[in-house]
This record gives sequence, C-alpha cells and structure tokens, in this order.
Amino acid sequence: MKRLLKGGTVVSGSGCTPADVLIEDGRIAAVGQELAAGEAEVTDVTGKLLFPGFIDAHTHFDLAVSGTVTADNFETGTKAAAVGGTTMILDFATQYKGESLHEALENWHKKSDGNSSCDYGYHLAISDWNDAVREELDSIVQEGVSSFKVYMTYDDMVLCDKQIYQVLKRLKEVGGIVGVHCENKGIIDARIEEEKAAGHVEPSAHPVTRPAEAEAEAIDRLLKIAALVDIPVMVVHLSTALGYQEVEQARARGQKVYLETRPQYLVLDDSRYELPGFEGSKYVCSPPLRKTEDQEHLWKALAEDRIQTVSTDHCSFTYAQKERGAGDFTKIPNGMPGVETRPVLMYTYGVLKDRITIEQMCRLLSEQPAKLYGMYPQKGCIAAGSDADIVVWNPDCTWTLTKENQAANVDYNPFEGFEVKGRAEKVFLRGTLVAEDGHMVEAGKGEYVRRKKPEYFI
Amino acid sequence: MKRLLKGGTVVSGSGCTPADVLIEDGRIAAVGQELAAGEAEVTDVTGKLLFPGFIDAHTHFDLAVSGTVTADNFETGTKAAAVGGTTMILDFATQYKGESLHEALENWHKKSDGNSSCDYGYHLAISDWNDAVREELDSIVQEGVSSFKVYMTYDDMVLCDKQIYQVLKRLKEVGGIVGVHCENKGIIDARIEEEKAAGHVEPSAHPVTRPAEAEAEAIDRLLKIAALVDIPVMVVHLSTALGYQEVEQARARGQKVYLETRPQYLVLDDSRYELPGFEGSKYVCSPPLRKTEDQEHLWKALAEDRIQTVSTDHCSFTYAQKERGAGDFTKIPNGMPGVETRPVLMYTYGVLKDRITIEQMCRLLSEQPAKLYGMYPQKGCIAAGSDADIVVWNPDCTWTLTKENQAANVDYNPFEGFEVKGRAEKVFLRGTLVAEDGHMVEAGKGEYVRRKKPEYFI
Amino acid sequence: MKRLLKGGTVVSGSGCTPADVLIEDGRIAAVGQELAAGEAEVTDVTGKLLFPGFIDAHTHFDLAVSGTVTADNFETGTKAAAVGGTTMILDFATQYKGESLHEALENWHKKSDGNSSCDYGYHLAISDWNDAVREELDSIVQEGVSSFKVYMTYDDMVLCDKQIYQVLKRLKEVGGIVGVHCENKGIIDARIEEEKAAGHVEPSAHPVTRPAEAEAEAIDRLLKIAALVDIPVMVVHLSTALGYQEVEQARARGQKVYLETRPQYLVLDDSRYELPGFEGSKYVCSPPLRKTEDQEHLWKALAEDRIQTVSTDHCSFTYAQKERGAGDFTKIPNGMPGVETRPVLMYTYGVLKDRITIEQMCRLLSEQPAKLYGMYPQKGCIAAGSDADIVVWNPDCTWTLTKENQAANVDYNPFEGFEVKGRAEKVFLRGTLVAEDGHMVEAGKGEYVRRKKPEYFI
Amino acid sequence: MKRLLKGGTVVSGSGCTPADVLIEDGRIAAVGQELAAGEAEVTDVTGKLLFPGFIDAHTHFDLAVSGTVTADNFETGTKAAAVGGTTMILDFATQYKGESLHEALENWHKKSDGNSSCDYGYHLAISDWNDAVREELDSIVQEGVSSFKVYMTYDDMVLCDKQIYQVLKRLKEVGGIVGVHCENKGIIDARIEEEKAAGHVEPSAHPVTRPAEAEAEAIDRLLKIAALVDIPVMVVHLSTALGYQEVEQARARGQKVYLETRPQYLVLDDSRYELPGFEGSKYVCSPPLRKTEDQEHLWKALAEDRIQTVSTDHCSFTYAQKERGAGDFTKIPNGMPGVETRPVLMYTYGVLKDRITIEQMCRLLSEQPAKLYGMYPQKGCIAAGSDADIVVWNPDCTWTLTKENQAANVDYNPFEGFEVKGRAEKVFLRGTLVAEDGHMVEAGKGEYVRRKKPEYFI
Repeated sequence: MKRLLKGGTVVSGSGCTPADVLIEDGRIAAVGQELAAGEAEVTDVTGKLLFPGFIDAHTHFDLAVSGTVTADNFETGTKAAAVGGTTMILDFATQYKGESLHEALENWHKKSDGNSSCDYGYHLAISDWNDAVREELDSIVQEGVSSFKVYMTYDDMVLCDKQIYQVLKRLKEVGGIVGVHCENKGIIDARIEEEKAAGHVEPSAHPVTRPAEAEAEAIDRLLKIAALVDIPVMVVHLSTALGYQEVEQARARGQKVYLETRPQYLVLDDSRYELPGFEGSKYVCSPPLRKTEDQEHLWKALAEDRIQTVSTDHCSFTYAQKERGAGDFTKIPNGMPGVETRPVLMYTYGVLKDRITIEQMCRLLSEQPAKLYGMYPQKGCIAAGSDADIVVWNPDCTWTLTKENQAANVDYNPFEGFEVKGRAEKVFLRGTLVAEDGHMVEAGKGEYVRRKKPEYFI
Repeated sequence: MKRLLKGGTVVSGSGCTPADVLIEDGRIAAVGQELAAGEAEVTDVTGKLLFPGFIDAHTHFDLAVSGTVTADNFETGTKAAAVGGTTMILDFATQYKGESLHEALENWHKKSDGNSSCDYGYHLAISDWNDAVREELDSIVQEGVSSFKVYMTYDDMVLCDKQIYQVLKRLKEVGGIVGVHCENKGIIDARIEEEKAAGHVEPSAHPVTRPAEAEAEAIDRLLKIAALVDIPVMVVHLSTALGYQEVEQARARGQKVYLETRPQYLVLDDSRYELPGFEGSKYVCSPPLRKTEDQEHLWKALAEDRIQTVSTDHCSFTYAQKERGAGDFTKIPNGMPGVETRPVLMYTYGVLKDRITIEQMCRLLSEQPAKLYGMYPQKGCIAAGSDADIVVWNPDCTWTLTKENQAANVDYNPFEGFEVKGRAEKVFLRGTLVAEDGHMVEAGKGEYVRRKKPEYFI
Repeated sequence: MKRLLKGGTVVSGSGCTPADVLIEDGRIAAVGQELAAGEAEVTDVTGKLLFPGFIDAHTHFDLAVSGTVTADNFETGTKAAAVGGTTMILDFATQYKGESLHEALENWHKKSDGNSSCDYGYHLAISDWNDAVREELDSIVQEGVSSFKVYMTYDDMVLCDKQIYQVLKRLKEVGGIVGVHCENKGIIDARIEEEKAAGHVEPSAHPVTRPAEAEAEAIDRLLKIAALVDIPVMVVHLSTALGYQEVEQARARGQKVYLETRPQYLVLDDSRYELPGFEGSKYVCSPPLRKTEDQEHLWKALAEDRIQTVSTDHCSFTYAQKERGAGDFTKIPNGMPGVETRPVLMYTYGVLKDRITIEQMCRLLSEQPAKLYGMYPQKGCIAAGSDADIVVWNPDCTWTLTKENQAANVDYNPFEGFEVKGRAEKVFLRGTLVAEDGHMVEAGKGEYVRRKKPEYFI
Repeated sequence: MKRLLKGGTVVSGSGCTPADVLIEDGRIAAVGQELAAGEAEVTDVTGKLLFPGFIDAHTHFDLAVSGTVTADNFETGTKAAAVGGTTMILDFATQYKGESLHEALENWHKKSDGNSSCDYGYHLAISDWNDAVREELDSIVQEGVSSFKVYMTYDDMVLCDKQIYQVLKRLKEVGGIVGVHCENKGIIDARIEEEKAAGHVEPSAHPVTRPAEAEAEAIDRLLKIAALVDIPVMVVHLSTALGYQEVEQARARGQKVYLETRPQYLVLDDSRYELPGFEGSKYVCSPPLRKTEDQEHLWKALAEDRIQTVSTDHCSFTYAQKERGAGDFTKIPNGMPGVETRPVLMYTYGVLKDRITIEQMCRLLSEQPAKLYGMYPQKGCIAAGSDADIVVWNPDCTWTLTKENQAANVDYNPFEGFEVKGRAEKVFLRGTLVAEDGHMVEAGKGEYVRRKKPEYFI
C-alpha cells in the first residue's frame, strides 16, 4: 500500500524543506519535490509541517507504586501518546528484588504486548545488582534493550555508590547507556524528618524535602563515578539550574553527559504547591517543580543545545489516588501525566515564543532520543528507508488544554486552561493513520522495537 | 536534463541515510529509496558518501596586499576550491578608503564574474565608515550582500571601537552579520618594536608579536560592544584557547556568538616558525599558528558544537612573494593557501580520528555556513528543492598532499607530505559535473549568489 | 614628648587586642598591657578602638578640570581628611602634555607643601609618554614616588594600548605600580553621540554613556596587556560586578591584580541620577554609580578579601560648579567629595552591618594601602617603630551626615541625612593631636612622605 | 618571672616589625622598641624571627587503629611538636560506638594529661550519632570543645549523608565547627575490589583506590549539605586540584568554606608509591600523595589565601607496623609522621621559594588555626596579653632532615635527606623555654586549653 503526503514542509533537525513524502509498505520511500503519485493514495498536507513521529523516552505505564497502580496502563497511555503525536515510547521495565532482568522484561511484555497504540521499547531499571545480573546484561543488550535506569533515591530502588560504579563498569563492556534519577537520599530523608517534626504534612512540604542541592549533589556524584569509569551517562528529568551547572562543569572537564528535562519544569513552577486545599498534590512529582529562575536556565540550555531530550516521565494518578497522601505528603503517589501534551507545549511555549527553533524541537522530541536510544534512522527522521512515523502538524490550530479533551485516563490536567497553538492533525505509525485531530483512528497497532546500541551523537 | 545518483549514502547535519538522489534542472528533485530512473542518466555512487557541496566562507582571491597581489585569482582559486569539493565560496570585497560600498562590490564583480568555477558571493569589508556608508548599508543587504567584515588591526583597515559600535548598531537595523578579525593592534605594534629593537627579524618573531592575549583581548572587546548593541557577531579565524574562553564567557552571559576556525590551526602548530632558513615564512599568517594545546581546545570545541564553521582564509603567495619579507618579518605577505585541502583535512584529521562526527563535518563545512550567510536551504543540504551541489566522496581513497598535485597557483603546500584519506571523486555544481578525481571537468560554471539575511540557527 | 594611650583596644589587620600604646617623639614606642606611664602624658581611651591612621590613596585636590578647579584644595581637603580620621592621603600629580614628570611633581608640591593637615604623597599620572619620560621614571621611583596612574579614557589623558604596554614594561624595570582608570573611550564617545542625538542632555544620560561593559572591557584589556608584560596592576575605583568578573578570571589564570573601590559604589546607586531637576548632577562621577546588584557583588568581594583598598576619589565641586553642565551632561564636572566620610561609612555600613569585619576595615583603609604604596610599616599599623598616626574611634557615637557638619569645602553632602555610628574622636598625626570630634585642633602639620617600592602582599 | 626578648623581628599575619617582647607571668606584657629590661632576664634574639608558637590542628597520638597503636603517644608526639616549634596541638578524641562524647573526652584526657610537652586540645570525632549525643553537644561546646570531626569513609567511622546533615544542623545551634574527612566510600570500596581482583596488592595500588574524584565528590556532597544547613565547614587534608575546584565553586555560590592541607601534599608526590620493595608503604596515608600538578594548585591556593591552615595529620607507624600490610595494601596502617617538620618545610619550600610570604606562613601555622578553633588571641599572635608562646626562629641555619635527628618515635623519616633552612632555635611555652636547637629543655609543661567558639575570620 502506498501513500503520498503532498504539499507539506518536512521538518528535520537541520531545517525545514517543502517536499512530498512517499510512503510504501510502512516505510518512507522517497522525499522529493513534485513526486509523481502513481498508484499511491494522495493526502494533501498543504500548509502543514511534517515531523518525524515524536518519541517519549520516559513513561511509566501500568506501574505499581506507593501502594497503588498508575492510572494509565499501556492501553490508555499509548493512546494518549498517539493522539498527541507520539509514535514511540520507552517505558521503564523494573527489575524487582530477587528477579532476573529477563523476568523483568517478560513482566513488562505482558503489560504492553497487544495493548499498545504506538511503538514501544523498555529501559531496564536495575534494583538488585548481583553477579547473575552482571552476567545477564550482555545478552539483554544483544537482544535489543540497550538502555538502563538506576535510582539514587527511593528505598526500594536505590543503588549505593559502589553498585553504581559497578553497573557503569559493566555497561561500558556491553555497550549500554544508563539514565539516572539523581537525588540525594540522605538529604531527602533528613528533610522529611524535619518537616514532619515541624508539623508540615501538606503538599507544600514536598519541595522543601527535595531541594535543588539534593539534585545537584547526586548529579555531581554520578558524574564523578562516570568519569572514573569513563563512560557517557544520561541525567534524566533535570530540573534545576544548580544541577545543570554540575553537568556543565563535568563537560568542561571533558566528560560526555546527556541531559533530559520535562515540559512541566519548563512551564510550571513551585508556586503550585501553595495552592489551597489539597490541590498542590496534583503537581507532586520527583524532582518537584522548581523556581521560575530554573525554568529560564533550562530554556537557555535547550536553546544552546546543551539538553538533548525532552521527555515526560508520564506517571499518572487520579485525584482520588493522590488523596492517599492527605495528612502525609510523603504518601502522595509521585507523578504527573504528560505524554499527550508534550509536543503542543514545546511548540507553543518553545517554538512560538522563540525560545527554541522548530529544528531544535525536532531534535529534542524525535531525532536525538532516536539516536541516543539506538533507533536512528529507523525512527527520528523523515528520510528514505525510515519507518513512516509521521506527524502532520497543523501550525495554526488554537485550542485549550483541559481534562475533558485529554485521552489519558486521569481526572485532572496539570496544564488545565493553557491556551495552546499547533496540533497533531494526522498521526501515521509505520504508514497507518492511527490518530486524527485528537482521536484514535486505529488503536492497538503498536509494536515492540528492538534497539541497537546508543549512538553518542555529541 | 535529469540525473540519478544511485546507491550512495546521503550525509546531512543530522545523520547518514542510504538513498538515491534525483537531479533535475540543476536542482534536487527527490531523495528516496530505490528511486525509478525513468529518463534520468544514472550515476552509480555505491559505497560513496554524498555531501552537500562544501562552502568556504573565507577566501581572499585576487587581493592586492603587502605591495603584491595574491597568487590565486578567481580563476585559479575557484578551480582549487572545486577540485577539493567546495562548490561555493565567500570572498571579501574590500571597501578602500574613499570608496562607496557599491564601488567595492563592483570592483570585486569585475574580478570574479565569468572567471569562477564554483558559485560565489561576497562579504563586504568596511574600512571607511561615514554617514554615506551608513546610509548605503540598507540597500546593500537588500541586494543580497548580508555579511560584512571589520578589522581590529592592520593600519589600512582597522576601525576604532567607536566605529565598531556604530557599524554594529547599523547592522542591527538593516539585518546583516559581521565577521571580525580580532587582534589588538597596540599590543602587536609594541611587540613589533620590541622584536625589531632586539634584532629579531626572522619568521620566528612573527608569533611573538601576535600573542594569544592579543586575540583574546580583541574578542572580549568586540563582544562587550556587541552586548551593548545586542547583536550576534561572528569571530573569524579563532586560533587560541584563550580567545575561546572569552567567547564561552560571553555565551554564559547570554550572548549569541558564532565562531569560525581554520584547518591550519587544527593540524599545524607554531613549531613551523622555527624551521631553518626562511622556511617558516610559508606559515606566516595572522593570527599565527598556535600551540598544540590550542589545537586540542579547538578540536574539543568543534566536538561540542561550540564552533560553527571551518573556513580557510585562503590567501596564497608564492615563495618568491614571501621572500619580500626576508630580513624583516613584518614585510612577509600574510596568508596561506587552503581552499583545496580543507575537506580532506577535516575528514582525515577530524572524522577518521574520531574528533568530530561525519555529521558535524557536514554542518561545519556546509550546512552552517549556508545558514549563517543566508543561503540555506538553497545551499548546505541535499534535500528536495536545493541546488544540486553534491560532492561524491570516496571514503576509501588514500593519497598524499603535495605541491605537485594541487590545483592552487602556489609553489608550495603547507601540508606537504600529509597522508590523507577520502576524496572528492565527483563534484556536481547545480547538477553539472565540474570536477572529478582532483581535476576540473568543466570550468567557469560558477555564478554569483544573492543571499538572504542570516539565519541565527543557534 | 611622650604620651600614653591607656585602656583602649588596638585594631590591626589580624585582630583586636586590649593594649596600651606608648608614643615617643612622634613614633610608637611600645604596645603592651598595663604599660607604666612614667613621664608620659596619659590619655584615657577606655572603651575606644585604636585604628592605625586611615590612608586615602585616591584624592584630587586643587585640580584644574572641566574648565574649573576642584572646590577643595590641599588646605581644605586635608582638613576634611583629618577630621574624619585620615592621616595620610595620596593625591594625583598630573603630568600635562609637554611636561616632564619632575615638573609635574614640582607643580604639585607647590599646591600641597605647607598647606596640608595630614601627611601626603603623590601618584604620578602619565599623559605624555615619550623616551624622556621613559628615562625619567627610574629616578622618580628612586626619589620616593613609586606609584603611577594611567587613563584609558578622557581626551586629555588617555594612553593608547601600545603606550600602556610600554609604560608597564618600563615600570617592571624600575619597580613601580600603576593604577588604571579603566573605561572604554570608544563606547563612551559613541554613546554620548547617541544620547545627544536623542535629545538626552540631563544627568540621567550620564550612566547610559558609561555602561558596565565599558568598564569591564577596559579592565580585561589592561589585564591582558599586563599579563604579557608580567606585572601586577591596580584597577582603581572598580564599580561593577561585570568588571570584577574580569579580574577574577585573570586571577584564575594566575595574574596578580589589586582592586580599589569607593564608598559611593557601596552605599549609593544609580537611582540618584533620576532625581528631579538638576539634583542628579551631584552624583555625576566616572565611573558612575551603579545598580544595587553591583553593590552586593562589591560587598561580597570585600568580605572575601578580593578587593584590597577602599579609597574615595575625592574630587569635589560646588553645586554652582556642577551647573556648568546644565543642558549638557557632558559638561558637568565629574566628581564627588568623600575623603571625610569614608571611615564612618565603612564602619556603619560595613562593620556594623556584618558585611566586613573590623579587621578587614583596618586592612582596607590602612594596612593594605600602606603596603601597596610602599609605606608599611611606617604607616598602616600600630606597632613599635611605626609613625604614631592613631585614630581614637568612639564606637558608640551616633550622628547624622549633613553638609552643615562637614569640613570639606562643598555646599552639599552626597550622603546627606545618613544616620551613622562611630566617630574619630581623637586623631593623632605622628603623635600630635590634630583633630578632635570633627574639628581641627592643630592644622598644617602634614608632611610629604617619600615611599618605598610596592609590597605585593598577595 | 619576667623575660625580655631583645633585638628580634616580630612576625605577625600582617607584617614583620623589629621589636622587643616583654614576657611576664607566662603572658606577653609588651611589644615595643627599646623596651627597658628592668628586672627582666634579657635574651638576645638579634637577627632572629619571633613567630607566635605554631599550632598543629591535626594530630593523632596514641590512637588504636588498623589493629595496632600509633607509634607516637602524647609523650613522644608533643615532644616532637615542641622541638619543631609547635606549642599547641589539637588531637582527635574519638567517640567509639556506644560511647557518649564525654566518655570519649575522658578517655583522651587520660592519654594526654600530665604527658604533654606542648599545650593541647581536642576535636571530637563523632562516630555514633543519636539523640543522646545530639543533646550532649551543647554542653561539650560550653565546656571548651568547639570543634568536631566527621568521616565520610572508613567502616568504623563513616556517617551517612542524613547523619551529616543532622550533625551540621545541631552544630549550627550550639556553635561548633566540623572538620570533615572527604572521600567517597563507595568508590574506594569498588576500586579495592577491582585492584585485588586484578592481583594488585602492593602499596602502588593504594592511590588507585582513592582517586582525586573520590575526594572531590565527597567535598561537593559535604558542601551541598552544608549549604542547605547554612553553616561554614572545614575540609581537612585537602589533597587535589579537583577537590579545590569544588570548594571554589561553592565559594562562588556564596558559601563559607575553610581548607586545610598538609605539608606532604606540597613536597611529596605519588611517585613514592612506585618505590621498590615495600618502601612505598611509608607514604601510605589517606587521602594519598598526589600528582605534581596538584602540588602546584595547592601552592597557588596558599599564595592566594584560599587555604586557611596547614596541619600535619601526624599519625605515625614504624616500618614494622607498616609491614602488617605486606601482601595486602589495605592492611597497611594509614598515616605518616609530620608534627615536627611542618614549620621548617613550610619555611624552606614555601617562604624561601617565594611561594608564600612569611606573613602567610604565620597565618597558616598560627594565627588562622588559633582563630578558627577558638583560641585567638590567647594563641596565634605576639601581642600584649597573649600567652607567651614564642618561637625564636633562626632563618640562616641550614641542615638536613633524617630519621636520626628527629624526636618523633618513628624509625623512618618521610622527608629523609631533605636539605632545609631555618630552625626553631628557642621555643617558649607560656614563657618557659621548653626546647632549644632540636632538643627538649623542659618536658611535660603542656596544659589543656579550653576553647571558645570558632571565629569565622573570612
């Protein structure tokens, strides 16, 4: 089956070119001017931007955490992704204590296989480091899982510095990359004790217990360990200017460091925790929302190409779930939805406000995660031979984000009432039109993606 | 006339993709997989890399200087460019005292029109700043000359700080970018007096009179003035780590600064000035060759995307011309050839030594100068609609740089004996095969390019 | 004649010690506990702080400038100094074009000799650099003038970069230190044209024409030149955080740089230029008053011992003189009074506000200028053998600064209405009580001080 | 009893002054010129420098560690101190698990009281943090122990980040300062496993397991925690440029940080670990000796007053004791002697090599530790009222360091064969001549010193 997207402007990480795109058997066959339609079905995309399908490299679907399970599973989560223009997600398969890595992967395949409306892969979160796991890592990478996750906080997940050193050493041998949740557990624990002792149990205590220093410290620690091992690492969900400075200093010393941030750090700030009642709980995530100065530093870093990906850390809970933490902010399930709104937020608040170029948006949401996580050029670009994952973006559509018009399975929208511009008008997944104007057209077409080793593009 | 380049790998600033390229009427009609040839002539480029034609944004052809005229004029210089894979050059049209800018342009058109074997445009070097020139600038930009040059040294060319401030102010109004030769004239003059007083008249005195501090100082001065005017600027031929630090500090303060460096700063060092006899004169250029530590810093900056273009400052003299400075190093004509060897040097010493990626080479030599100097996407990329300026690069060819096998009109080669790898096997200029394996196939096909305003891509 | 100061606390750069001080023949004979009075006259200083006499290393008395002469000459200026606790000043003897350095000194001796109520010396401002001056420098230093001044702006005084290089080179040979007025003349001139063209002629235009960048640029330029010569330099009247950053960066590269700032930069800001009418003219000085953020950075630098001296640049004009610039801010005589109020301002706003320690105040106002300008330990400390220049400081006295209670010959007080604490209750100059409670007791006792070469104490 | 030191030059942190010093009843009665002897015994110190008695703020005497006990106890250790010119030491009283702080102090008093030949006090090393200890801290400070120690490595001593946060929080309340041993335990443990697995068991493996990054990481972590608590901290035995950079960055962010280094980091380097046989074991201490580049950075930091104290970490073992680690470098008792040689090493390699001034030596070895550890001006200066702890320093004496001429109870000298200049010719402890020319004159005169709260002098 052939399709010709006619009259659009193809966006890449380098520039925007008016060009037609010919799709054949789920892949891109040609990009050219005035391409002949032949037997292909022609879709008129005049006046539209064609982005390579967006990739969200940080989601948590169907995750058991804080005594509950995330509101979105793979079925609802990947639909939310697809309607927003995201055609590929990387979720975190978690190794629970006592499990092998393969068992963890198997568990996650059960959650996702057959239920997904966009393509998907897994980062593997390592929580139980031992000789068997060390051995197993090689085959895991060979089988197409080339990215991992390590936590520097959370009782169930934290690895100590010695273990992090050893994980990095092994990943250097087998060729995988690790994303790290960087926060200092000791600081957080001490601050939680302090806050509780002072009778502060509301959501407003949450950011106090996770100060910028806790993030920056852990980043520096990670980077010093990585320097000794001599391996590039990814700092996920960077939230602070202070943490960013640590990364820049390591880079100045010659280290290769990749950075990810999240839309909520760019458009929301910690004043949300001061909202009346229990409203602040909706914004409880870790690291927490930060100061407006941090926002400015992160936008500046994006503009200067010093941050490589923008992902969402989509980890959604209903308000009722959030209420588990009424009277004790440490029991509020941590996380926010976001997989659906990332493209339009970055377009509206990044591109249209001249903070980043449209090419940078393409790199951050598509090209660079594809490269870093071993999927380029299968994913991440509109080029001959690539998967025909294409977002037909209407740059003129103006609308409002609300909980009513979202696909995610959550009863609130953290960006409620935001006026936005731009929309994923048509979303093609490997050549199939899967979503249109915010609604699924064809669900369940997502497939698992085996990945190559990371491409260290900077 | 149509041509199909079949079986190659298309290089862009973002990645490498196996794809066919269809050329029609001098422009690229399609990039795709297994494109049908139809009536097109098919050229088999299997195993080859297809680069967008290289752009050298810094040449001096047919320039009267130091009481002589450069060895290369537009005829020989653009041939040297073309055989090396460079399909577009930007030369410096100099406004001499008393002239209008239009007169300067006219003079340069006389030198180049009809004589060029690659496409060309001009930066306009301003040496006589006055109200008339100020007025004239607007129309100059409208007519397609959107880039300028200012010198902070050289008796004939230097503008004082007040004038630089005023030039920048005006360029902000009319939308042009300026490249600046940054060296402190006072330091140079004082050092020249010192050296001569000490009886040092050989080429080895040249670098002593132009220390790193002289470059770094002028860079800082320029950037402070630019900060006040609030305009991006380009520092041309950056040569030192110290100067680079000034730029990075300005960037940290929020300034937009573009950087150019030259291949000779990357692969040669100042030990050349110590060569016996008058041999060192071959390497006399300004700023001079620097320390190996500077080389390392520049390579690192390239790897981190902190330098945007690599140009040559090709300004060639025969050894006989160089000898005008025997007994007085200040009389040695300043300059070196380079337009021909830049691509292969960057490929051999950059890409093959893993200092930069092949995508970075494409950005530095093609995509980014095209953007910065208002030619993108006409030039700078292989995409539907662009000029069919394409270099068919043989990545496997190993050869040696010598004065015998160069096209430039010089009797020495500063890179004599360098073993290199990679070669511009076929060079297409707007669809026409103009050079092949180091020889011109069809000369004189170059045309003048009117340019848009700069695209500030970072 | 002997005097015993009994019961006070001796302040030094290192600490505060309860101790008696025995004075004999104008010098300090002993510092000790419970010293026996013997034949000495006893002065009870219980509860008082004993500072080594303050040194103001930057005054302009009896200076012809802007078509007028400063309101204070040596007679009135040194009285203002003495009543405030300053027992030594360093004024600027200016070499006018065509003069030798010795002629300049002679001119200044005529102004000061016999007219001074505190001790004094000269920095020599070089405006006419030539071979004769170069030769003369050696004997000047030998004769006891070991500090110099160079201007980077002002039509009459400015030296070009080449000359600055040569002055520094020569000073390195003869062993003198230079203080430099760092502002970029080109920026200032361009901005003045702009402001006048825009019809801005009021005092509020003054700071616009002398932006922080103009200071920072000149500082960087000076420091690059000094680095090449390899000589320590003094940046006088530092006013901006931006300029400070340049100094810190040079220090990080290994340079020795000394810094001076002025009280007005610490306690006044540029909002003064917005005062109604012509009121802003009272604060016109160069560099101008700055932002409150600059104040904070300067205080922080003082606290960290990164600034070495606080001087006043006392250069006073009456309001009538200021009015010469009505309708043209560039004609307002530049300068403010300050020699009288410096100690109490630094005590009130520095020590009592915990921004600096009392020991730091002692170092900044006494010990360090004494060392840097070759007078230590004759001046700058209360130690056996030193000149008995002692300020008996009442730490408890609270009063208000007004034009009525000042000794300087000016009809306004830039610090009008400031509530201050602390007072020079008794001021001894080489053992003689010269001032008491804000009034002269014995005038005209000042003597010229021949100085040694600088002591580079950091 | 009175004594008059006649004809010497008194050294202070600010300068050198020729002056006589009158001692009465163990304290300094007067400093003056040509003081009358009266009934005082006169000691001629013409041509000598008089330093305030040196303070070594970091010793470990009579310490049980690594299954053995240090070679020097208080009797031998304080003699070694005294003959070198050190009149006050601060040893570490260690709280063992299960003990109260008072018990720890009591244990240490038993070791030292009656056995000491110089004055002494304790820092209290906290290893068992709990509510009782928290409570106890207030009285400890009140009783005159105002400085503490925390370890970030060593199985027996390490506190976790949460505990460090809590210790700092409490010290902020009670007014004590903490010195911290900064090394990352996880990195060290991982590296030890690696080295042993690779069969590296010799002393040369020691530095590999404690890389610069391990120090720098821990420093950054400490400083981030201290920033949150908002308390100044002391980083003890700083050894690396990398660690220093962390401190400078924290200072740039506005933090108050104190630094200590050791003479061995300044004059020895890690090539010692490559010595043949088991010779390298003599230099095994933690952190280990570093690179010559680190030496240069530390000297530069000293010259710029960025390091506040130089102490020894004297922790001596005989070669026989060192041999406990033959075949397993982790079993080599960590530590080196040094209390005796510090003054002469700093004088020879610092002052005489123009790396630091004599005033800086006085500040580093005497004035600043006195202030920081609450003993100034009782200790740390030669001023009226201070303890008459005075070192009569012969600046001309040239000699050689050997194990034979040392007083410490060790059978090797890490500085064996070093030619040095300068010598503690006479050492007065509270007015009593206790040592002369390298020999004790009167032993056992040391007394315990109760201390005030820290003076944060910068």
